[in-house]
Formats: sequence, structure tokens, C-alpha cells
Amino acid sequence: MSSSTASPTAPHKPGAAGDSADASANISNFKLDNGLEVVVIPDARTPVVTHMVWYKNGSADDPIGKSGIAHFLEHLMFKGTKNHPQGEFSDLVAELGGQENAFTSYDYTAYFQRIGKEHLETLMAFEADRMANLLLTDEVVSPERDVVLEERRMRTDNDPSAQLDEAVQAALFAHHPYGTPIIGWLHEIETLNREDALDYYRRFYTPENATLIVAGDVEAEDVLRLAKETYGKIPARAEPPRRNRTKEPPHRAHRLVSLSDEKVEQPAHERVFLVPSYKTAAPGEAEALETLAHMLGGGATSALYETLVVEEKFAVGAGAYYLGSAVDDTRLWVYATPAPDVSLEELDRAIDGVIRGFIEQPIDEDHLRRAKTRLVADAIYAQDSQASLARWYGEALATGLTIEDVAAWPERMEAVTAADVTAAARKWLDKRRAVTGFLLPADEEA
Amino acid sequence: MSSSTASPTAPHKPGAAGDSADASANISNFKLDNGLEVVVIPDARTPVVTHMVWYKNGSADDPIGKSGIAHFLEHLMFKGTKNHPQGEFSDLVAELGGQENAFTSYDYTAYFQRIGKEHLETLMAFEADRMANLLLTDEVVSPERDVVLEERRMRTDNDPSAQLDEAVQAALFAHHPYGTPIIGWLHEIETLNREDALDYYRRFYTPENATLIVAGDVEAEDVLRLAKETYGKIPARAEPPRRNRTKEPPHRAHRLVSLSDEKVEQPAHERVFLVPSYKTAAPGEAEALETLAHMLGGGATSALYETLVVEEKFAVGAGAYYLGSAVDDTRLWVYATPAPDVSLEELDRAIDGVIRGFIEQPIDEDHLRRAKTRLVADAIYAQDSQASLARWYGEALATGLTIEDVAAWPERMEAVTAADVTAAARKWLDKRRAVTGFLLPADEEA
Repeated sequence: MSSSTASPTAPHKPGAAGDSADASANISNFKLDNGLEVVVIPDARTPVVTHMVWYKNGSADDPIGKSGIAHFLEHLMFKGTKNHPQGEFSDLVAELGGQENAFTSYDYTAYFQRIGKEHLETLMAFEADRMANLLLTDEVVSPERDVVLEERRMRTDNDPSAQLDEAVQAALFAHHPYGTPIIGWLHEIETLNREDALDYYRRFYTPENATLIVAGDVEAEDVLRLAKETYGKIPARAEPPRRNRTKEPPHRAHRLVSLSDEKVEQPAHERVFLVPSYKTAAPGEAEALETLAHMLGGGATSALYETLVVEEKFAVGAGAYYLGSAVDDTRLWVYATPAPDVSLEELDRAIDGVIRGFIEQPIDEDHLRRAKTRLVADAIYAQDSQASLARWYGEALATGLTIEDVAAWPERMEAVTAADVTAAARKWLDKRRAVTGFLLPADEEA
Repeated sequence: MSSSTASPTAPHKPGAAGDSADASANISNFKLDNGLEVVVIPDARTPVVTHMVWYKNGSADDPIGKSGIAHFLEHLMFKGTKNHPQGEFSDLVAELGGQENAFTSYDYTAYFQRIGKEHLETLMAFEADRMANLLLTDEVVSPERDVVLEERRMRTDNDPSAQLDEAVQAALFAHHPYGTPIIGWLHEIETLNREDALDYYRRFYTPENATLIVAGDVEAEDVLRLAKETYGKIPARAEPPRRNRTKEPPHRAHRLVSLSDEKVEQPAHERVFLVPSYKTAAPGEAEALETLAHMLGGGATSALYETLVVEEKFAVGAGAYYLGSAVDDTRLWVYATPAPDVSLEELDRAIDGVIRGFIEQPIDEDHLRRAKTRLVADAIYAQDSQASLARWYGEALATGLTIEDVAAWPERMEAVTAADVTAAARKWLDKRRAVTGFLLPADEEA
């Protein structure tokens, strides 16, 4: 029953195969008659498999007024089915020496296990059962709602930094549901009940809306056969579920969100730009944004770090990242922690200066080359983990990309030019469309 | 066909009868079998009647993704019915020497005529026909949508001050539909079609959802008889329409929205506080907020004007108002126009100082007495206009108040104490929950 909300702000970029063409060629991709997509990623180094089911619905698909239902249902998916009482599945995974997890994000909900490869069939039978036969009673729903409410109180309502993040995202998205927190608004979570959960389950938990990813020392035909015997038995829907989201109006005004609280000991600065995702961007634009974010704030050789921390000593930390995996327009974050006696206003102006450098001055070709090499290398290293490889493909497919998109990513990254980075900075790092967040101690209220 | 959007920011307070008990006693209130509420306000001074139908649905009841539909339908209500082709109603009103208008606000949509009293029956027959028999074809819907789009472009998209107001309200309401403009988001207006309009019409334009107000030299029993013969013929719904709105989460962070544009010649400052309405407030609290807003910024003897304009010369104009007529929690605005060479930051700090005066210092009893006297007197003077009297009652009833609430308003205002005003300022003028808007010329971008 380890159930966790995915960090909405963790940077995930589509993974890439080491020898990209080869690895992609080894990946198998099927569609069962009931619409379930099956992806098999060979990895023969250990006798372990990673088994994931990704549903193409996340918090941004929560019905209006029912925010938090995607995440709440993720919790409830551990409450047993018509065939297996609560705890049986999790206990079995533990007994067999496996690991499990689940996570809800804006665009997807996923269930994950790692286990010895001989147990794959068992996992698939249990997970397929859970896709179709969830059993919910008020006796399990109400206490679990209290668990989620407590999770929200602990993680957000008691943490000024999380409160600020929530207020910044709400300000960035005036209309699109990315402005609503994954976990939901407290007053709406309080109203979620068994019927809401079942309505949502019946709407989204269907084979047409799911992607099965199996990575490990397995043969594609074996996985396909097992998938047909388990998931394949679940009937298709007459009509597959659709995402139905409101679109954001154009933004023309900068918004500064200031939160001061006596619990704040270290002030902090963040700036969020509304930018296209890998799914919504023009060709090459998301890759340019990925590169730009890395050059701006990826590590100790980035422009923000070098300028603010090393040279000017305005900040003790600074960075940037691009949340490219998203179905709709997404976010590029810039953040910094001020040095003692530096005000957030001073820091803000210094950050403006670094960003202006990317807009007004030529891109350093050496820095660009290093950034691209590093991003592609990071992606390759990360594939060393079977689970992160599976996660990359799952996330990409769940946000509307294809296996080919993922496989061709290193190539597209290599193609990013200095002109592309400058163009991305000019077009998208426009403060008039951005939100800035100030986290302040109580006595420094803005 | 004079159709107009009501100004969302005009201060409207519930009206009050001159000799309040008497006037209220003279008002008649009926309910027809089909649910229509009928209010008759006697006014024998001229042989003129004011006839209004108020529907209890406004832009805040627009379905998600269909913003602007309430306002769009208001336009389309002038397009003819099964019985009367487009233009016949308006032409008749004009021929008979009458006036007509219509307006859409957050919480209601209303249709209005003023005409010689002998024509009341005719008006009622036409307006009742329009409640039940609207006829819409694509031929009239599409061009009218272009009219609305042009209205939006002219009034908002081409006006930085209106853009800022829109962004400020969107920032104030993270979740509640008051954050969506009455006219709708451009990209959603573009999608509104005949079927959307008819769905909305069928849902909300029903006798149970309407209030008929007739003011003038009429007898209540005559109006009731005519109402039965016209509106009374429209069948009731099985289930009356309901408002179904999302609630706002708690706010903990101040938001500063800055808009700079080359079209801006005069910078401006606004601050909006989220406060209870006459409908949502605890007893006496809305009246205290009304008084507080007037003392803060109602005219040349208000604290903001005296301090900022007269004494400190930081501003060339300043004011405040409370939008008390609202179904849900609403807004108290403070605004100022800086003097030349005064920055918005300086002005902002000066405004903070004036507000702090109300929170920290005793209320001037003389100022309080003058404010209450003036507010009640304004309400009495305004009743001199038959149309504004009718509008006050219509607005109050459409936002969930009663005739008794309106009639008792002067008495409740008289009861407001200095302690009430201080308590309201302390509780509600909390900057941490507010939004500030800066309107700036292009070269002074924040």
C-alpha cells in the first residue's frame, strides 16, 4: 500500500536509448483488441521485471468541483477487488520480494511493481483484476479520505513553501486545470465519496485508456501472450474516455505572488514561465527549451549559478528546469535562494539580468555544446535503471508522444542550434506572461 | 436591440424605502403557480411603468468551457420568437415611446423596459413570449457571435486597463467563477453555437428562475392578473434550475499583477480584497464593510482621498467601493491614480498606511456618523428614480436576499458601530489574501 503523489515539479525529460536506433528497434509495441497498448522493453542484465500500468488521466482530468479524485482513487486502488480482498496484492508482492508504488500526476496515474521475472504472470493477473473489479465500500472510502486530507495538511497546508507553489501555479493557470493542485483543494477532497470514486474509475480505468509497460529479461511474445490472457479479457468500452480540458486565455500581465509566514526561515524566489510542452511545441521548440533551461540553471556551470552564486554572491543556490512531459502547455521554472542580506527584489533584478543575457546576447557555443552533451548523456545513464527506462516510455506515451518520439530525442537534441535557444528565450521567457513567487519570513511581509 | 453588459464594478447597494417601513409595506409580492415571483412597487408620480424580468443566472453560472454564454444569450434574446420575428418587440417599444435594455452580470441577467402604463400588458405578453418561445437559427447566431467577439476586442483586448482588471480578478479567484470575465474568454466565445445557447436557455429561462418586477402607477391586483394571463401560461419545470459553482480555496499569498502597455498614458493602482457579500456575510458584517468602504474611499472626505490626494499629494484620485450584491464571496476595491513622479510602489505603501489606520487606530465617530448618514441618504435619493428602485429590488432578490432585507437595510446601517468597522477592517483588509494591480506605461515595465 505504498501510494504516493508524484512530485509535480520533478524534471522529467523523455528518455533516449543508448544506441538510440538499436534500442528503439528492440522495443515491441502491440495493441490488444480491447485497446490496451502493450510496450515491451528488453533488458536482460538481471532476472527482474518492471511492470507498469499507465492510465491517461491525471489531476487535470478531475471533474470540476471534484479536484483530488484522480489521486484519491489511486489510494483506493489498494483497497481490494471482487476477487482479492484488501491487502492481498500488496502482501503478495512483498512476500515475493518485490516492490510496488503508484503515483498521480497532472496527466496520468500509474501503478508500478518490480519483481523476479518468474512472477510477472501473477502481477499481470492481479493488476488486470484491479483494472476491472475494484470493490469499494464506505467503510474503506471514508478513512482513506481522512488519510488524504492528512497528507494534504502535512505536505501543503503546513508548509509555506508548498503553499506558495500552489498559489503560484493557481496564478499561472487562470483557467486550465494545471492550476489546481494534484492532491486537490481541501474543501473539495472533503466531499469526495464512494460514488465519485466509482464514477471516475468507470470512466477512466479501461483498457483503451491504459498503457502496459514491461521492461526486463522477457520475450515480447511471452508478454503479449500473458497480456492477452489477463488484460485481454477485459471488455473494451463503446467509447474510449476523453480528456476534456479548458484552455488558458492569453496572458499579458506579470503576477508576483508573495507569501510570508512565521515558519519561513530561508526566503526563496521562483519564477514560472508558461511554455509549450513536447506535445504542444512546434518542431524543435521543446528541445530548445530543454537546452535553454539547462544552460540557464542546470547545475554549477549554468548561467544562473555562475552569475548569482559564484560571481555576484546574490544567491546561495539557483537553478532552472523545464517540465516538458505534459499534454498541454507547461512550465519552465527558474528559482534561487538569496544570500543573507540580499532582498528578494535585488535577487529578482539579478535573475532578470541573467535571463536578458540569453535574450539579447549571442549564445556561447561551447556552453551550448556542453549542455546538449550533458542532457543526452544524462538520459543515457538513466537508462541504466530498468525502472527509469520504463518510466520514461510510460510518461511519454501517457502524454501523447510515441515510442519513435522518445527514440529520436537525442537526435533532435543534437540538432538544437544557438539560434534556436535564442529564439526560445525571446519568445517564451517573457516576464509579462510569467508568475514570480516570493517566500518571506513573517516580519518581511511584502 | 440595445443590449449591454452591466459594469461588473459599479457599486450597487440594496436600496431602501424613504419611510422604510411604509414603502416596504406598499410593495406586493406574489408567487405564481409556475414559480414566477412577482413584485409590484407602487409609484404614482408619473403615468409610467418600469417592467423588468430578472433571471437568477449570470456569467458565474456559465458551464465550464462555455464562458460568455449567459451574455451571448442575452444578445440572442433580441432575435425573435416563434410568434414575433426579430425586431418586432424592440420596434414596438420604440414606437410606443418606450425604452428598453438588458444586462448580464455575474449572478443574474435582466431585461428591462420603461413605457406608458397603458402599454404594460403588451410588454408583459411580449416578454413572456420571449421566456418560452425563443427561436434561434444559425443565420442569426453566427453574426451575433461576431458582434460579441468585437465587443470583447473593443472593450477588453484593446484596453490595457480592462486587461488588468481581468487579470486581477482571475488572480483573486483561483477557482470560483467570478474569476472569469462576464463576457467570457475569447477562445471560448468563438466556440459558442446555437445548440449551446438553446441548452442554456432551456436550463435557465424558466418561470421558477425568474423574478418579475413592475414599478409604477399600477395596482398590484392588476399586475397579478396580467402576470397570470401572460407569464402564468408558461409551464413550470419538473426541477427548477440550480446554481452549481465551485468554491474558492483559502488564500494565504498576496498577488501583485503588473500590466505594462504602450497604450497606457496614466499609471493606475488597484487593490482587491476578497470579502463576504450581503448574502454570505455574518449579520451586520456586510453593512460594516459598506461603511468601511465609504469611509475609506467614498468621495472627497474619505480617508484615501484626504490623505493621498489632499495631504500627501501622492495621488490625483483615490477611492474604494464594496460590491455587496453577490451570491458568493465578493470584492472590496481600493484604487488610486498616482500624481506625476510618484511611483506605484510609493503609492502602494501610502495606501497600506491609510488601511493600517483603520486597523490600528480608533474610528473617528464623526466620520462614521457622516458616512452612515450619507449612505442611507444616497439610497433614499436614488429611489426618486423608478428604474433604480426597481433595479435595487431586482438585484437583491436575484442575489438571494428578500424584500424585507432591502427594506430593513437603513436600520441595519444605522446599527453599524465603530467597533464593527474596526473588526471588518481587521478581518477582511488582510493584504495576504488580496490582489494588487499595477497599470504601467510600456517603458516602466515592472
